[in-house]
Amino acid sequence: MYEGVYDPTSRHADENGFRQDTLGALRKLQMTAMRYPGGNFASGYHWTDGIGPKDRRPSIYDKAWESIEPNQFGTDEFLKLARMMNWTPMLTVNLGTGTPEEARDWVEYCNCPAGSRQANLRVENGSVEPYNVKLWCLGNEIDGHWQMGHAPADQYAIRAQQAARLMKDIDPEIETVACGSTTMSGSTYIDWDLTVLEHNGSDVDYISLHRYVGNPENDTADYLACSASVDKRIEHMDAVCRVVQAKTRNKKRHYLCFDEWNVWYRANGPEDTKGHGNFAPPLIEEAYNLEDALVVAGFLNSFIRHADSVKIANLAQIVNVLAPIRTRGDDLLLQSIYHPFAMFSCRREGVAIQPVVIGPTYESRSYGRVNYVDASVILGDGVLHAFLINRNLSETAEVEIDHGRGKIESIFFAEVVYGSDPKESNTFEKPNQVIRRPLKTGVVSEGKAIIQLPPLSVSAITFRVS
Amino acid sequence: MYEGVYDPTSRHADENGFRQDTLGALRKLQMTAMRYPGGNFASGYHWTDGIGPKDRRPSIYDKAWESIEPNQFGTDEFLKLARMMNWTPMLTVNLGTGTPEEARDWVEYCNCPAGSRQANLRVENGSVEPYNVKLWCLGNEIDGHWQMGHAPADQYAIRAQQAARLMKDIDPEIETVACGSTTMSGSTYIDWDLTVLEHNGSDVDYISLHRYVGNPENDTADYLACSASVDKRIEHMDAVCRVVQAKTRNKKRHYLCFDEWNVWYRANGPEDTKGHGNFAPPLIEEAYNLEDALVVAGFLNSFIRHADSVKIANLAQIVNVLAPIRTRGDDLLLQSIYHPFAMFSCRREGVAIQPVVIGPTYESRSYGRVNYVDASVILGDGVLHAFLINRNLSETAEVEIDHGRGKIESIFFAEVVYGSDPKESNTFEKPNQVIRRPLKTGVVSEGKAIIQLPPLSVSAITFRVS
Amino acid sequence: MYEGVYDPTSRHADENGFRQDTLGALRKLQMTAMRYPGGNFASGYHWTDGIGPKDRRPSIYDKAWESIEPNQFGTDEFLKLARMMNWTPMLTVNLGTGTPEEARDWVEYCNCPAGSRQANLRVENGSVEPYNVKLWCLGNEIDGHWQMGHAPADQYAIRAQQAARLMKDIDPEIETVACGSTTMSGSTYIDWDLTVLEHNGSDVDYISLHRYVGNPENDTADYLACSASVDKRIEHMDAVCRVVQAKTRNKKRHYLCFDEWNVWYRANGPEDTKGHGNFAPPLIEEAYNLEDALVVAGFLNSFIRHADSVKIANLAQIVNVLAPIRTRGDDLLLQSIYHPFAMFSCRREGVAIQPVVIGPTYESRSYGRVNYVDASVILGDGVLHAFLINRNLSETAEVEIDHGRGKIESIFFAEVVYGSDPKESNTFEKPNQVIRRPLKTGVVSEGKAIIQLPPLSVSAITFRVS
Repeated sequence: MYEGVYDPTSRHADENGFRQDTLGALRKLQMTAMRYPGGNFASGYHWTDGIGPKDRRPSIYDKAWESIEPNQFGTDEFLKLARMMNWTPMLTVNLGTGTPEEARDWVEYCNCPAGSRQANLRVENGSVEPYNVKLWCLGNEIDGHWQMGHAPADQYAIRAQQAARLMKDIDPEIETVACGSTTMSGSTYIDWDLTVLEHNGSDVDYISLHRYVGNPENDTADYLACSASVDKRIEHMDAVCRVVQAKTRNKKRHYLCFDEWNVWYRANGPEDTKGHGNFAPPLIEEAYNLEDALVVAGFLNSFIRHADSVKIANLAQIVNVLAPIRTRGDDLLLQSIYHPFAMFSCRREGVAIQPVVIGPTYESRSYGRVNYVDASVILGDGVLHAFLINRNLSETAEVEIDHGRGKIESIFFAEVVYGSDPKESNTFEKPNQVIRRPLKTGVVSEGKAIIQLPPLSVSAITFRVS
Repeated sequence: MYEGVYDPTSRHADENGFRQDTLGALRKLQMTAMRYPGGNFASGYHWTDGIGPKDRRPSIYDKAWESIEPNQFGTDEFLKLARMMNWTPMLTVNLGTGTPEEARDWVEYCNCPAGSRQANLRVENGSVEPYNVKLWCLGNEIDGHWQMGHAPADQYAIRAQQAARLMKDIDPEIETVACGSTTMSGSTYIDWDLTVLEHNGSDVDYISLHRYVGNPENDTADYLACSASVDKRIEHMDAVCRVVQAKTRNKKRHYLCFDEWNVWYRANGPEDTKGHGNFAPPLIEEAYNLEDALVVAGFLNSFIRHADSVKIANLAQIVNVLAPIRTRGDDLLLQSIYHPFAMFSCRREGVAIQPVVIGPTYESRSYGRVNYVDASVILGDGVLHAFLINRNLSETAEVEIDHGRGKIESIFFAEVVYGSDPKESNTFEKPNQVIRRPLKTGVVSEGKAIIQLPPLSVSAITFRVS
Repeated sequence: MYEGVYDPTSRHADENGFRQDTLGALRKLQMTAMRYPGGNFASGYHWTDGIGPKDRRPSIYDKAWESIEPNQFGTDEFLKLARMMNWTPMLTVNLGTGTPEEARDWVEYCNCPAGSRQANLRVENGSVEPYNVKLWCLGNEIDGHWQMGHAPADQYAIRAQQAARLMKDIDPEIETVACGSTTMSGSTYIDWDLTVLEHNGSDVDYISLHRYVGNPENDTADYLACSASVDKRIEHMDAVCRVVQAKTRNKKRHYLCFDEWNVWYRANGPEDTKGHGNFAPPLIEEAYNLEDALVVAGFLNSFIRHADSVKIANLAQIVNVLAPIRTRGDDLLLQSIYHPFAMFSCRREGVAIQPVVIGPTYESRSYGRVNYVDASVILGDGVLHAFLINRNLSETAEVEIDHGRGKIESIFFAEVVYGSDPKESNTFEKPNQVIRRPLKTGVVSEGKAIIQLPPLSVSAITFRVS
């Protein structure tokens, strides 16, 4: 948060210390749910350290990143920012070193009218009205042995249920997200999720999924196919939710919250993730390129295809750390992954419909046979949004869009990100190498559309339909 | 506690704020063990919030009842009240959101001579002499998913053992009560109790039982038979204690502590149990009638019949909430259930002896075949107390009392509660509808007594015997 | 610690309150690792109670010993003493009533440079430079039902892993010691250790062993044989470490930390271990005799024989409580066990080599057949140290020392503790009954040595070798 978003010393800073250039660029991404605090940090974070007069907040050795957390940006700062940005705040309670009661107190601080201890504290800190935070994550990646407070599934399940129960006693309107398995390769994959959901029944509403992908072996064709495994991961977890619902005869069905995902593989060595005791140091800043932008689009396609089960998905990081936006001093850079995100998010209104893709395929090394074209579709009010990735490294894909019993009238607005070099990326010196541009290759005839998708491209096309 | 017992604003209040009218009525019930704090509230209660100068005690959002707890009545107030009322105080430690160490510190606060931190705190708060609280409950209903800090049996067992060990390290004279299964319908019934007692061995002295009954289907005959299921519940739990003693080859036998029981079914909707954030709001105030009085007498009969295993039994609530006494402003009302309680408690000295009841029976819908007459007997010093409920809705029962090798000399003192309408109840306007009256229907001849029990009645008869 | 070591009122006290006479005697024992706080006390000790201005430190009712702990000797006092004495400090974190985070904070207090909350606190308390404490015990005897915070193996394993993870996040250079089974007779022996090590993998470096022995049946021959069971205990635990390493395919091997051992059987009644609420009372002070000195030597022999797995061994108590040194007012007494300890520790440099002992044996009642002579050997730089116990009650043992392919040149320095009465002991009145004296019975010829070991003796002989 420090420097990129909250930096009272920047010439872009407003009176609250927020950089207006960064916030302007973020605003265009129209993010909805925003999670705080993020990741491993959450498992050692005591929210009470980040409230009250700033000069009395303690500097904490951050156990997760080996750096000093000055606590100048805390609950009130985040929730005001969220309101300003029109984000739905998602708070992650500390179930690593924190107690269920501490989590409950945070709900009281955020959501209760004045009159009781924690709510009175919020009023003292300047916010008379409750914030009404509706989404709460019950810890972070507790299945991982690297996580502060790591515990086996049955122990985490108890802790999560205790926290959720206390939190919902305070505010029955909130929704809670339990930690799911962090990775598919963990030894407790699926068993963890079954245990957690069975024990939590109606106290939990969502289960979380995390996924970071990369191209460490420099095999672009394979890398681009990874959304097949995102599909598989989602379908596994949806099966868990359904089988638990069956076994517990619960009217309620749990849904998926894909609250961490991105490309992350370059800046992953010990030197990238450790701050060596410095004050809010810059960490794991990935420089994203064209192939990363297509992979991010592949995640978004998978989420749209599974909109019946994936109800929340967050890009975990927004500025600098694994992020679509980078800052350097007062400068700001839109990374390659910024553009597909913007193309998708301005087209998100509507109902996801299942596309049938018929066309050439290729055998990927890690993910089996996949279509060259990866697609998702949203049907809006008089419009149809198609999101099409051409994973072919060298050939254009000609795609015919058939709306079934509906009729495509015209192309309303079409954009594309493409390039000839999968490694092309934006830099502060050359910031416009990988950006979205108008897509002009489409024609509509007899209610169908034909589009030429350049090699190595992601397109977002909005049709008028009837 | 607020309003009914502790209400400094009442014209009945003494200099400590206790209502003398209420205490006078309570005194006649001659209660022995009194548990505090009660029920679900205990699982979120931090005793340190309720000590020290009253104007510095925090207002806590009560997680259990969704109301504001002002903490004006706390440990010192309760223990002084107990001393004044001649009650044996039973404190319930918080094993929901509290730690074993917090429980231990409470024992030190209450029972240790000055010299160490917690004991010194008590002295500062005005009580130089230790209170010597001997009975301590290890949490409340932790088997229930609704309970703050709910946990599986093996987890609760560990927490309870840790607390008991720490508490008995501080004061080896105390006795501890572990949470038993809350209901017979819970999926962990009996398994919970076996696990908890096996793990706790000699650190625990009692296991608790809770039971609330009601007549939601308006079937009076069936409702009156429910003491059969109280018998069964006690016998189940006694079997658990015996089998654990056998398995662990323990010299010590665990006993039963029936520390919550009553009639409770009317005021049980979500609106009755939630305070909506109000300050110490009135909640679940049941208006008791004649059939409820007979059912309360049935509980007491069952306890007397099982006096070899039920060593403690508490009416959980005393004023207003599910209580024998109600207040309205400065007025006070004795509810129907007050009277059998008073009739039993003034006759409690002596040894319970097992009565053999021979007579007509009826088939109840829920509890199988039961005698019309439900009986218990206490043999005192030259006296025999018989407690006789006639569950017949319309017919008088003629009962012959045979003291076996002993001899009944005369009727010393006999009382009865009866009526023709099972729904009759006392109100502030008509406070004497269901009260105890002299019973004059008995005759003694040849060492035996013959008594006429009116339909729908409970009688308590004290005979002189030789 | 109070009175014997830290006693500002003694005429032997230096400006920090440490008794120079005691420290002088201790210095001669050349102890290496020193554990603090010790034993059961550690499971209820909050380190924050023992730092800061001494007049503001709380007096705590000590749960373990039923006495008042004035907290005048705490972390800073211990670590300064350790530096002064050249001890490697081993701190035991509280995993009984304390949290993993409290343990982590202690590491930060001790080892982190200024800048974060806990480290800043140390600086405020006068120590700018970190102490760099490298050895940390993860609780004490949590397998024992008597222990504060007692838990089953799987629960302790989770707690220990959480603590170790947090502690190593703060300082990756530290090493951690998990609690092993306290006794061989406990019902969870070996299972406990397997579970704890399997769950902790690389987060733990050592597993602890405790052993107290005695001669309650007054059978000296049997008692002297008990080092056979120390061997067995070590070998059991080493097997656990190896099997866990195999099963988890871990590159890392766990080692043994024998951090409590001694003779303790006389002062073991309830009156010896309870302070009855007194201020730092004298407890369990054993008066050691000759046979105890030989048994202590037997422990040391066993440790040397197993130097490949036993990497740390601590005499748990140093002054007064089960200790080699006693004080009475300003007087100081070296107990019998002081002497073998001094004889071994001045000869500890070098590599342990496995002696082959061929000679007469006897059948002990409890430990099977053992050699009369118990031996261990350390090969140093041009020297060979032999430690030889003659357990024969009445006969001298003639021992030939053969250095295999090496050659014994001469006897450099030889000492012996012996006597005719196994019950002989030192008192303040007769302090020199059982002391080490020069051993003059050896001759060297043709590269071999021949030594006469008196009955009931322990000898330490340093040879020059080539």
